[in-house]
Amino acid sequence: MSQDRLERLLRELREFVRERDWQQFHSPENLAKSVSIEAGELLGCYQWGPPEDSSRVQEELADVLTYCLLLADRLGLDPLDVVLEKLEVTRAKYPVELSRGRSTKHDQL
Amino acid sequence: MSQDRLERLLRELREFVRERDWQQFHSPENLAKSVSIEAGELLGCYQWGPPEDSSRVQEELADVLTYCLLLADRLGLDPLDVVLEKLEVTRAKYPVELSRGRSTKHDQL
Amino acid sequence: MSQDRLERLLRELREFVRERDWQQFHSPENLAKSVSIEAGELLGCYQWGPPEDSSRVQEELADVLTYCLLLADRLGLDPLDVVLEKLEVTRAKYPVELSRGRSTKHDQL
Amino acid sequence: MSQDRLERLLRELREFVRERDWQQFHSPENLAKSVSIEAGELLGCYQWGPPEDSSRVQEELADVLTYCLLLADRLGLDPLDVVLEKLEVTRAKYPVELSRGRSTKHDQL
Repeated sequence: MSQDRLERLLRELREFVRERDWQQFHSPENLAKSVSIEAGELLGCYQWGPPEDSSRVQEELADVLTYCLLLADRLGLDPLDVVLEKLEVTRAKYPVELSRGRSTKHDQL
Repeated sequence: MSQDRLERLLRELREFVRERDWQQFHSPENLAKSVSIEAGELLGCYQWGPPEDSSRVQEELADVLTYCLLLADRLGLDPLDVVLEKLEVTRAKYPVELSRGRSTKHDQL
Repeated sequence: MSQDRLERLLRELREFVRERDWQQFHSPENLAKSVSIEAGELLGCYQWGPPEDSSRVQEELADVLTYCLLLADRLGLDPLDVVLEKLEVTRAKYPVELSRGRSTKHDQL
Repeated sequence: MSQDRLERLLRELREFVRERDWQQFHSPENLAKSVSIEAGELLGCYQWGPPEDSSRVQEELADVLTYCLLLADRLGLDPLDVVLEKLEVTRAKYPVELSRGRSTKHDQL
Protein backbone atom coordinates (compact mmCIF):
# COMPACT_ATOMS: atom_id res chain seq x y z
CA MET A 1 0.00 0.00 0.00
CA SER A 2 1.49 3.31 -0.98
CA GLN A 3 2.15 5.64 1.90
CA ASP A 4 -0.04 8.69 2.07
CA ARG A 5 1.59 11.51 0.06
CA LEU A 6 0.30 14.03 2.57
CA GLU A 7 1.92 12.20 5.48
CA ARG A 8 5.27 12.17 3.65
CA LEU A 9 4.99 15.90 2.96
CA LEU A 10 4.07 16.68 6.57
CA ARG A 11 7.15 14.78 7.74
CA GLU A 12 9.38 16.84 5.43
CA LEU A 13 7.78 20.06 6.67
CA ARG A 14 8.24 19.06 10.32
CA GLU A 15 11.91 18.16 9.69
CA PHE A 16 12.44 21.44 7.81
CA VAL A 17 11.07 23.40 10.80
CA ARG A 18 12.85 21.30 13.40
CA GLU A 19 16.33 21.50 11.85
CA ARG A 20 16.01 25.29 11.83
CA ASP A 21 14.67 25.35 15.39
CA TRP A 22 11.65 27.31 14.17
CA GLN A 23 8.94 25.61 16.22
CA GLN A 24 9.36 28.41 18.76
CA PHE A 25 7.89 30.88 16.26
CA HIS A 26 5.07 28.58 15.16
CA SER A 27 2.40 29.31 17.75
CA PRO A 28 -1.09 28.72 16.31
CA GLU A 29 -1.64 32.47 16.33
CA ASN A 30 1.57 33.21 14.39
CA LEU A 31 0.63 30.51 11.89
CA ALA A 32 -2.89 31.97 11.50
CA LYS A 33 -1.32 35.41 10.91
CA SER A 34 0.99 33.83 8.33
CA VAL A 35 -1.95 32.27 6.47
CA SER A 36 -3.50 35.76 6.20
CA ILE A 37 -0.23 37.40 5.19
CA GLU A 38 0.39 34.90 2.40
CA ALA A 39 -3.28 35.06 1.32
CA GLY A 40 -2.73 38.79 0.78
CA GLU A 41 0.31 38.08 -1.39
CA LEU A 42 -1.69 35.55 -3.44
CA LEU A 43 -4.46 38.13 -3.89
CA GLY A 44 -1.77 40.62 -4.98
CA CYS A 45 -1.30 38.58 -8.17
CA TYR A 46 -4.83 39.67 -9.15
CA GLN A 47 -4.70 43.24 -7.84
CA TRP A 48 -5.33 45.24 -11.03
CA GLY A 49 -6.30 42.50 -13.48
CA PRO A 50 -5.31 39.01 -14.60
CA PRO A 51 -1.94 37.82 -13.30
CA GLU A 52 1.02 38.62 -15.51
CA ASP A 53 2.95 35.73 -14.01
CA SER A 54 1.47 32.27 -13.38
CA SER A 55 4.58 31.07 -11.55
CA ARG A 56 4.08 33.80 -8.96
CA VAL A 57 0.47 32.62 -8.40
CA GLN A 58 1.73 29.05 -7.92
CA GLU A 59 4.38 30.21 -5.44
CA GLU A 60 2.01 32.31 -3.35
CA LEU A 61 -0.63 29.56 -3.31
CA ALA A 62 2.10 27.17 -2.14
CA ASP A 63 2.91 29.57 0.70
CA VAL A 64 -0.71 29.75 1.89
CA LEU A 65 -1.02 25.95 1.71
CA THR A 66 2.25 25.48 3.58
CA TYR A 67 1.09 27.57 6.52
CA CYS A 68 -2.33 25.86 6.48
CA LEU A 69 -0.61 22.46 6.70
CA LEU A 70 1.70 23.67 9.49
CA LEU A 71 -1.27 25.07 11.43
CA ALA A 72 -3.34 21.91 10.98
CA ASP A 73 -0.38 19.84 12.17
CA ARG A 74 0.23 22.13 15.15
CA LEU A 75 -3.42 21.72 16.17
CA GLY A 76 -3.37 17.94 15.72
CA LEU A 77 -5.78 18.11 12.79
CA ASP A 78 -5.70 16.18 9.53
CA PRO A 79 -6.10 18.81 6.79
CA LEU A 80 -7.96 16.55 4.37
CA ASP A 81 -10.32 15.25 7.07
CA VAL A 82 -11.27 18.76 8.22
CA VAL A 83 -12.07 19.76 4.63
CA LEU A 84 -14.25 16.66 4.21
CA GLU A 85 -16.05 17.31 7.50
CA LYS A 86 -16.71 20.94 6.57
CA LEU A 87 -18.00 19.82 3.15
CA GLU A 88 -20.74 17.86 4.89
CA VAL A 89 -21.76 20.97 6.85
CA THR A 90 -21.80 23.02 3.65
CA ARG A 91 -23.83 20.32 1.87
CA ALA A 92 -26.57 20.78 4.46
CA LYS A 93 -26.45 24.60 4.31
CA TYR A 94 -26.64 24.62 0.51
CA PRO A 95 -29.12 21.97 -0.72
CA VAL A 96 -28.77 21.52 -4.47
CA GLU A 97 -32.42 22.40 -5.19
CA LEU A 98 -32.14 25.82 -3.50
CA SER A 99 -28.58 26.78 -4.32
CA ARG A 100 -28.07 25.52 -7.87
CA GLY A 101 -26.62 28.29 -10.06
CA ARG A 102 -26.88 30.87 -7.27
CA SER A 103 -24.12 32.52 -5.27
CA THR A 104 -26.61 33.65 -2.61
CA LYS A 105 -25.50 33.14 0.98
CA HIS A 106 -27.23 30.28 2.80
CA ASP A 107 -29.18 32.50 5.18
CA GLN A 108 -30.78 34.22 2.19
CA LEU A 109 -31.78 31.04 0.32
CA MET B 1 -2.82 0.07 -3.22
CA SER B 2 -4.95 2.66 -1.54
CA GLN B 3 -6.04 5.51 -3.76
CA ASP B 4 -4.59 8.91 -2.97
CA ARG B 5 -6.80 10.50 -0.29
CA LEU B 6 -6.26 13.90 -1.83
CA GLU B 7 -7.50 12.71 -5.23
CA ARG B 8 -10.65 11.28 -3.65
CA LEU B 9 -11.27 14.55 -1.82
CA LEU B 10 -10.75 16.63 -4.96
CA ARG B 11 -13.29 14.49 -6.80
CA GLU B 12 -15.86 15.08 -4.05
CA LEU B 13 -15.18 18.82 -4.16
CA ARG B 14 -15.51 18.94 -7.94
CA GLU B 15 -18.80 16.99 -7.79
CA PHE B 16 -20.08 19.28 -4.99
CA VAL B 17 -19.37 22.36 -7.14
CA ARG B 18 -20.69 20.80 -10.35
CA GLU B 19 -24.03 19.62 -8.96
CA ARG B 20 -24.67 23.17 -7.72
CA ASP B 21 -23.53 24.69 -11.02
CA TRP B 22 -21.06 26.86 -9.12
CA GLN B 23 -18.09 26.62 -11.50
CA GLN B 24 -19.33 29.87 -13.06
CA PHE B 25 -18.40 31.71 -9.85
CA HIS B 26 -15.05 29.97 -9.43
CA SER B 27 -12.75 32.12 -11.53
CA PRO B 28 -9.17 32.00 -10.23
CA GLU B 29 -9.59 35.58 -9.03
CA ASN B 30 -12.79 34.85 -7.10
CA LEU B 31 -11.10 31.83 -5.53
CA ALA B 32 -8.05 33.92 -4.55
CA LYS B 33 -10.39 36.49 -2.99
CA SER B 34 -12.14 33.67 -1.13
CA VAL B 35 -8.83 32.39 0.27
CA SER B 36 -8.19 35.90 1.69
CA ILE B 37 -11.72 36.26 3.02
CA GLU B 38 -11.58 32.94 4.85
CA ALA B 39 -8.02 33.65 6.09
CA GLY B 40 -9.46 36.77 7.74
CA GLU B 41 -12.14 34.68 9.46
CA LEU B 42 -9.48 32.23 10.68
CA LEU B 43 -7.43 35.13 12.04
CA GLY B 44 -10.61 36.39 13.73
CA CYS B 45 -10.43 33.41 16.10
CA TYR B 46 -7.24 34.98 17.52
CA GLN B 47 -8.32 38.63 17.39
CA TRP B 48 -8.10 39.61 21.08
CA GLY B 49 -6.38 36.57 22.57
CA PRO B 50 -6.41 32.79 22.50
CA PRO B 51 -9.41 31.26 20.74
CA GLU B 52 -12.39 30.54 22.96
CA ASP B 53 -13.60 27.88 20.56
CA SER B 54 -11.33 25.29 18.95
CA SER B 55 -14.10 23.99 16.71
CA ARG B 56 -14.41 27.43 15.13
CA VAL B 57 -10.65 27.43 14.38
CA GLN B 58 -10.99 24.00 12.76
CA GLU B 59 -13.94 25.19 10.67
CA GLU B 60 -12.26 28.35 9.44
CA LEU B 61 -9.02 26.50 8.63
CA ALA B 62 -11.10 23.99 6.67
CA ASP B 63 -12.61 26.88 4.69
CA VAL B 64 -9.20 28.32 3.77
CA LEU B 65 -7.94 24.87 2.77
CA THR B 66 -11.07 24.21 0.72
CA TYR B 67 -10.59 27.34 -1.36
CA CYS B 68 -6.85 26.61 -1.74
CA LEU B 69 -7.67 23.14 -3.09
CA LEU B 70 -10.33 24.55 -5.45
CA LEU B 71 -7.88 27.18 -6.73
CA ALA B 72 -5.06 24.67 -7.21
CA ASP B 73 -7.46 22.40 -9.11
CA ARG B 74 -8.75 25.30 -11.24
CA LEU B 75 -5.14 26.15 -12.18
CA GLY B 76 -4.24 22.53 -12.94
CA LEU B 77 -1.81 22.36 -10.01
CA ASP B 78 -1.29 19.55 -7.52
CA PRO B 79 -1.44 21.21 -4.08
CA LEU B 80 1.02 18.83 -2.42
CA ASP B 81 3.52 19.08 -5.29
CA VAL B 82 3.52 22.89 -5.24
CA VAL B 83 4.18 22.88 -1.49
CA LEU B 84 7.09 20.47 -1.98
CA GLU B 85 8.54 22.55 -4.82
CA LYS B 86 8.30 25.75 -2.77
CA LEU B 87 9.96 23.98 0.16
CA GLU B 88 13.05 23.42 -1.99
CA VAL B 89 13.17 27.14 -2.82
CA THR B 90 12.80 28.01 0.87
CA ARG B 91 15.52 25.49 1.78
CA ALA B 92 17.95 27.43 -0.40
CA LYS B 93 16.86 30.84 0.93
CA TYR B 94 17.21 29.71 4.56
CA PRO B 95 20.33 27.53 4.99
CA VAL B 96 20.27 25.83 8.39
CA GLU B 97 23.60 27.36 9.51
CA LEU B 98 22.39 30.94 8.96
CA SER B 99 18.73 30.66 9.91
CA ARG B 100 18.73 28.26 12.85
CA GLY B 101 16.74 29.74 15.74
CA ARG B 102 16.20 33.04 13.92
CA SER B 103 13.02 34.49 12.42
CA THR B 104 15.02 36.98 10.35
CA LYS B 105 13.92 37.39 6.76
CA HIS B 106 16.24 35.76 4.20
CA ASP B 107 17.47 39.04 2.71
CA GLN B 108 18.73 40.06 6.17
CA LEU B 109 20.54 36.82 6.98
CA MET C 1 -11.65 79.13 8.81
CA SER C 2 -9.09 76.50 8.04
CA GLN C 3 -10.00 74.15 5.24
CA ASP C 4 -10.60 70.57 6.20
CA ARG C 5 -7.26 68.71 6.14
CA LEU C 6 -8.99 65.62 4.88
CA GLU C 7 -10.50 67.47 1.92
CA ARG C 8 -7.07 68.86 0.97
CA LEU C 9 -5.57 65.36 1.15
CA LEU C 10 -8.37 63.85 -0.93
CA ARG C 11 -7.78 66.47 -3.61
CA GLU C 12 -4.06 65.60 -3.73
CA LEU C 13 -4.91 61.89 -3.97
CA ARG C 14 -7.41 62.49 -6.78
CA GLU C 15 -4.87 64.61 -8.69
CA PHE C 16 -2.16 61.99 -8.16
CA VAL C 17 -4.45 59.29 -9.63
CA ARG C 18 -5.75 61.50 -12.44
CA GLU C 19 -2.34 62.66 -13.72
CA ARG C 20 -1.28 59.00 -14.00
CA ASP C 21 -4.57 58.03 -15.67
CA TRP C 22 -5.06 55.38 -13.01
CA GLN C 23 -8.80 55.80 -12.41
CA GLN C 24 -9.32 52.98 -14.92
CA PHE C 25 -7.80 50.53 -12.43
CA HIS C 26 -9.65 51.89 -9.41
CA SER C 27 -12.91 49.98 -9.56
CA PRO C 28 -14.42 49.59 -6.08
CA GLU C 29 -13.55 45.90 -6.22
CA ASN C 30 -9.89 46.51 -7.10
CA LEU C 31 -9.69 49.07 -4.29
CA ALA C 32 -11.26 46.60 -1.82
CA LYS C 33 -8.71 43.99 -2.93
CA SER C 34 -5.96 46.55 -2.42
CA VAL C 35 -7.11 47.30 1.13
CA SER C 36 -6.81 43.57 1.91
CA ILE C 37 -3.44 43.23 0.19
CA GLU C 38 -1.95 46.14 2.12
CA ALA C 39 -3.58 44.95 5.37
CA GLY C 40 -1.63 41.71 4.88
CA GLU C 41 1.62 43.66 4.48
CA LEU C 42 0.86 45.65 7.65
CA LEU C 43 0.20 42.39 9.52
CA GLY C 44 3.51 41.09 8.15
CA CYS C 45 5.32 43.60 10.39
CA TYR C 46 4.04 41.54 13.35
CA GLN C 47 4.40 38.06 11.84
CA TRP C 48 6.82 36.43 14.29
CA GLY C 49 6.94 39.01 17.08
CA PRO C 50 7.20 42.74 17.69
CA PRO C 51 8.13 44.78 14.63
CA GLU C 52 11.84 45.31 14.10
CA ASP C 53 11.15 48.44 12.09
CA SER C 54 8.61 51.11 13.11
CA SER C 55 9.02 53.01 9.84
CA ARG C 56 7.82 49.93 7.94
CA VAL C 57 4.69 49.77 10.15
CA GLN C 58 4.03 53.44 9.41
CA GLU C 59 4.45 52.90 5.69
CA GLU C 60 2.16 49.87 5.51
CA LEU C 61 -0.50 51.59 7.64
CA ALA C 62 -0.29 54.56 5.27
CA ASP C 63 -0.91 52.20 2.34
CA VAL C 64 -4.03 50.68 3.93
CA LEU C 65 -5.35 54.15 4.78
CA THR C 66 -4.63 55.42 1.27
CA TYR C 67 -6.69 52.69 -0.35
CA CYS C 68 -9.48 53.17 2.24
CA LEU C 69 -9.62 56.89 1.37
CA LEU C 70 -9.61 56.13 -2.38
CA LEU C 71 -12.42 53.59 -1.95
CA ALA C 72 -14.50 55.94 0.22
CA ASP C 73 -14.05 58.68 -2.37
CA ARG C 74 -14.92 56.32 -5.25
CA LEU C 75 -18.15 55.37 -3.44
CA GLY C 76 -19.04 58.99 -2.65
CA LEU C 77 -18.58 58.43 1.08
CA ASP C 78 -16.94 60.70 3.65
CA PRO C 79 -14.48 58.47 5.54
CA LEU C 80 -14.80 60.31 8.85
CA ASP C 81 -18.62 60.38 8.69
CA VAL C 82 -18.86 56.63 8.03
CA VAL C 83 -16.62 55.92 11.04
CA LEU C 84 -18.78 58.16 13.23
CA GLU C 85 -21.99 56.51 11.99
CA LYS C 86 -20.59 53.03 12.63
CA LEU C 87 -19.49 54.11 16.12
CA GLU C 88 -23.12 54.81 16.98
CA VAL C 89 -24.10 51.30 15.85
CA THR C 90 -21.26 49.80 17.91
CA ARG C 91 -22.28 51.92 20.92
CA ALA C 92 -25.68 50.22 20.86
CA LYS C 93 -24.24 46.72 20.38
CA TYR C 94 -21.78 47.15 23.25
CA PRO C 95 -23.44 48.97 26.16
CA VAL C 96 -20.81 50.03 28.71
CA GLU C 97 -22.42 48.10 31.58
CA LEU C 98 -22.27 44.77 29.71
CA SER C 99 -19.04 45.13 27.75
CA ARG C 100 -16.74 46.97 30.15
CA GLY C 101 -13.38 45.16 30.37
CA ARG C 102 -14.59 42.28 28.19
CA SER C 103 -13.59 41.35 24.63
CA THR C 104 -16.66 39.14 24.26
CA LYS C 105 -18.55 39.48 20.98
CA HIS C 106 -21.83 41.35 21.23
CA ASP C 107 -24.02 38.33 20.54
CA GLN C 108 -22.50 36.60 23.56
CA LEU C 109 -22.90 39.51 26.01
CA MET D 1 -11.32 78.41 13.02
CA SER D 2 -13.11 75.14 12.87
CA GLN D 3 -11.53 72.37 14.87
CA ASP D 4 -10.06 69.52 12.88
CA ARG D 5 -12.84 66.98 12.23
CA LEU D 6 -10.34 64.18 12.54
CA GLU D 7 -9.22 65.34 15.98
CA ARG D 8 -12.84 65.45 17.18
CA LEU D 9 -13.43 61.92 15.84
CA LEU D 10 -10.26 60.58 17.46
CA ARG D 11 -11.39 62.00 20.80
CA GLU D 12 -14.74 60.22 20.48
CA LEU D 13 -12.99 56.96 19.58
CA ARG D 14 -10.62 57.26 22.55
CA GLU D 15 -13.52 57.96 24.91
CA PHE D 16 -15.50 55.04 23.47
CA VAL D 17 -12.56 52.68 24.12
CA ARG D 18 -11.74 54.16 27.52
CA GLU D 19 -15.27 53.97 28.96
CA ARG D 20 -15.36 50.26 28.03
CA ASP D 21 -11.87 49.67 29.43
CA TRP D 22 -10.83 48.20 26.10
CA GLN D 23 -7.35 49.72 25.82
CA GLN D 24 -6.02 46.49 27.35
CA PHE D 25 -7.00 44.63 24.17
CA HIS D 26 -5.66 47.29 21.81
CA SER D 27 -2.02 46.32 21.47
CA PRO D 28 -0.59 47.43 18.11
CA GLU D 29 -0.51 43.79 17.06
CA ASN D 30 -4.16 43.16 17.93
CA LEU D 31 -5.11 46.33 16.06
CA ALA D 32 -3.09 45.24 13.00
CA LYS D 33 -4.84 41.86 13.12
CA SER D 34 -8.18 43.67 13.35
CA VAL D 35 -7.38 45.77 10.26
CA SER D 36 -6.78 42.50 8.34
CA ILE D 37 -9.88 40.83 9.72
CA GLU D 38 -12.12 43.72 8.74
CA ALA D 39 -10.40 44.07 5.36
CA GLY D 40 -11.44 40.45 4.73
CA GLU D 41 -15.04 41.30 5.58
CA LEU D 42 -14.94 44.30 3.23
CA LEU D 43 -13.56 42.07 0.46
CA GLY D 44 -16.39 39.62 1.22
CA CYS D 45 -18.85 42.16 -0.19
CA TYR D 46 -17.22 41.54 -3.61
CA GLN D 47 -16.64 37.78 -3.26
CA TRP D 48 -18.67 36.45 -6.20
CA GLY D 49 -19.54 39.65 -8.05
CA PRO D 50 -20.76 43.19 -7.47
CA PRO D 51 -22.06 43.87 -3.95
CA GLU D 52 -25.76 43.27 -3.43
CA ASP D 53 -25.79 45.68 -0.53
CA SER D 54 -24.04 49.06 -0.55
CA SER D 55 -24.77 49.67 3.12
CA ARG D 56 -22.77 46.57 4.00
CA VAL D 57 -19.79 47.90 2.00
CA GLN D 58 -20.04 51.21 3.86
CA GLU D 59 -20.16 49.41 7.20
CA GLU D 60 -17.17 47.18 6.52
CA LEU D 61 -15.12 50.09 5.15
CA ALA D 62 -15.99 52.01 8.32
CA ASP D 63 -14.67 49.08 10.39
CA VAL D 64 -11.34 48.98 8.53
CA LEU D 65 -10.98 52.76 8.87
CA THR D 66 -11.85 52.62 12.57
CA TYR D 67 -9.09 50.14 13.32
CA CYS D 68 -6.61 52.08 11.15
CA LEU D 69 -7.38 55.24 13.14
CA LEU D 70 -7.05 53.38 16.45
CA LEU D 71 -3.72 51.90 15.36
CA ALA D 72 -2.37 55.24 14.14
CA ASP D 73 -3.40 56.82 17.43
CA ARG D 74 -1.84 53.99 19.46
CA LEU D 75 1.44 54.49 17.57
CA GLY D 76 1.37 58.28 17.99
CA LEU D 77 0.91 58.83 14.25
CA ASP D 78 -1.37 61.30 12.48
CA PRO D 79 -3.25 59.22 9.88
CA LEU D 80 -3.54 62.04 7.33
CA ASP D 81 0.13 63.01 7.66
CA VAL D 82 1.34 59.43 7.12
CA VAL D 83 -0.77 59.15 3.96
CA LEU D 84 0.65 62.44 2.66
CA GLU D 85 4.24 61.36 3.45
CA LYS D 86 3.72 58.03 1.70
CA LEU D 87 2.23 59.82 -1.30
CA GLU D 88 5.53 61.65 -1.78
CA VAL D 89 7.41 58.34 -1.76
CA THR D 90 4.96 56.88 -4.29
CA ARG D 91 5.28 60.03 -6.46
CA ALA D 92 9.00 59.32 -6.81
CA LYS D 93 8.50 55.59 -7.50
CA TYR D 94 5.89 56.26 -10.18
CA PRO D 95 6.93 59.26 -12.32
CA VAL D 96 4.01 60.37 -14.49
CA GLU D 97 5.96 59.91 -17.77
CA LEU D 98 6.70 56.24 -17.05
CA SER D 99 3.57 55.16 -15.20
CA ARG D 100 0.78 57.01 -16.97
CA GLY D 101 -2.02 54.56 -17.89
CA ARG D 102 -0.04 51.55 -16.67
CA SER D 103 -0.62 49.34 -13.64
CA THR D 104 2.92 47.97 -13.85
CA LYS D 105 4.78 47.73 -10.56
CA HIS D 106 7.49 50.34 -10.10
CA ASP D 107 10.38 47.90 -10.29
CA GLN D 108 9.20 46.88 -13.77
CA LEU D 109 8.75 50.39 -15.17
